[in-house]
Amino acid sequence: MIVVKVGGSLGIDYDALCADVAELWKAGQKLILVHGGSAETNRVAEALGHPPQFITSPSGYTSRFTDRETLEIFEMVYCGKMNKGIVERLQGHGVNAVGLSGLDGRIFEGKHKDKVRSVEDGKVKILRGDHTGTVEQVNTHLLNLLLDNGYLPVLTPPGSSFEGVAVNVDGDRASAAVATALKAEALLLLSNIPGLLRDFPDEASLITDIPASEVESFMAFAQDRMKKKVLGAAEAVQGGVGKVIFGDARVAKPVQYALAGNGTTVQ
Amino acid sequence: MIVVKVGGSLGIDYDALCADVAELWKAGQKLILVHGGSAETNRVAEALGHPPQFITSPSGYTSRFTDRETLEIFEMVYCGKMNKGIVERLQGHGVNAVGLSGLDGRIFEGKHKDKVRSVEDGKVKILRGDHTGTVEQVNTHLLNLLLDNGYLPVLTPPGSSFEGVAVNVDGDRASAAVATALKAEALLLLSNIPGLLRDFPDEASLITDIPASEVESFMAFAQDRMKKKVLGAAEAVQGGVGKVIFGDARVAKPVQYALAGNGTTVQ
Repeated sequence: MIVVKVGGSLGIDYDALCADVAELWKAGQKLILVHGGSAETNRVAEALGHPPQFITSPSGYTSRFTDRETLEIFEMVYCGKMNKGIVERLQGHGVNAVGLSGLDGRIFEGKHKDKVRSVEDGKVKILRGDHTGTVEQVNTHLLNLLLDNGYLPVLTPPGSSFEGVAVNVDGDRASAAVATALKAEALLLLSNIPGLLRDFPDEASLITDIPASEVESFMAFAQDRMKKKVLGAAEAVQGGVGKVIFGDARVAKPVQYALAGNGTTVQ
Repeated sequence: MIVVKVGGSLGIDYDALCADVAELWKAGQKLILVHGGSAETNRVAEALGHPPQFITSPSGYTSRFTDRETLEIFEMVYCGKMNKGIVERLQGHGVNAVGLSGLDGRIFEGKHKDKVRSVEDGKVKILRGDHTGTVEQVNTHLLNLLLDNGYLPVLTPPGSSFEGVAVNVDGDRASAAVATALKAEALLLLSNIPGLLRDFPDEASLITDIPASEVESFMAFAQDRMKKKVLGAAEAVQGGVGKVIFGDARVAKPVQYALAGNGTTVQ
């Protein structure tokens, strides 16, 4: 069992990704696909006159401020356009994919954080009305039910709070939670860079291996959204996942390329 | 087992609908919910600068012309905002709902119609690039798998062509196909009118009963989108569904109200 997370940044080739996933699935590889949709959400949010708002926490993590209107735009893009686009590609390859958000069957469940701290001009502000959360529980029953019956789950945020409210959860960390809960052999975090870079954005400075015991010390090299990937990787390997690979989603066979060891391997 | 279809027109109270569905579900009523999203799709399509285009077939049926861009907007609203909004409401009532499109697991499968005939100024034109289809096959395996494991399926168009291409399918007729495939006791088609009206839009002219054998002769009273409901009802009762009720989705407990016989009952 492997968990493949593909980001939602520009430059990702979803046709190549889905062809690769289909090839592996048909060869008998059990897998779950998780995806993002960030760049397209930003575009649609701008077009609908409700531009995205990003906040930086005091500990340096960047995330989307998700008020109710943003949540609905987020659901339109992640659960609608992106999720169904990926399911359609897989169905076109003869793979019986089933697209679900973390709300469905409460696949991703966690505490709803209504208040967030945001650093603006060096000052910490409290923002209310946020719909975010961290995945604390994964509905493995539903995922196993689908897998055992030949359906490939294609998952996306948001998740559900314990009260059933939609909450935006980080896709990388949600994937780590899924991989941990299902005791996956590998978690692949694919995006539009080749892996963790020592000197971002110099792609020649790729870090190829990170010992599991030292993953947190590599956090210093992570920029922006890469920080959550490193955090997710730490959570996954500490949770018993065999290895985590940060790979490049812009290549021809991105899943097989990463599985062959290209990228940054944490184990 | 009952199948409840709720439309996507203005004036529908989804909070009331979901509270009612939750009450029935918790009392042990097996059901599947199917929904639309037409009005909101029109609004978002306008806002995104790709206004909706409706066509009328030579036999008088109105439908949305669904080019690739329209399909993506359609998916955003139906599969994203509407579907996840309904799932969230049900989860808030403690019902473990699972939202799926007809693409997922190929729940709704049929032939892709790329060309459609449209009557414009009395002339028949052929339009290409349409993504529509009619449901010919329902994946009852996946629906039963979910129901048997305590999950309430919340379904929405689009469906899948036999080749795996996303196709816009009519929600009323898709619901009729689901009800027929699952041998449902009843199919409820709820919208923002009280049922089939003899003199549309005079709500006092409600037709309360239609004998199953005569349903097609009542087609003369159906206006616009009501035509597909009458067609769906005919398909369902001829397919063995116990009864079909056209009910009002604007009332306090719309499902129980219709089940009590309010609306137009076809049986």
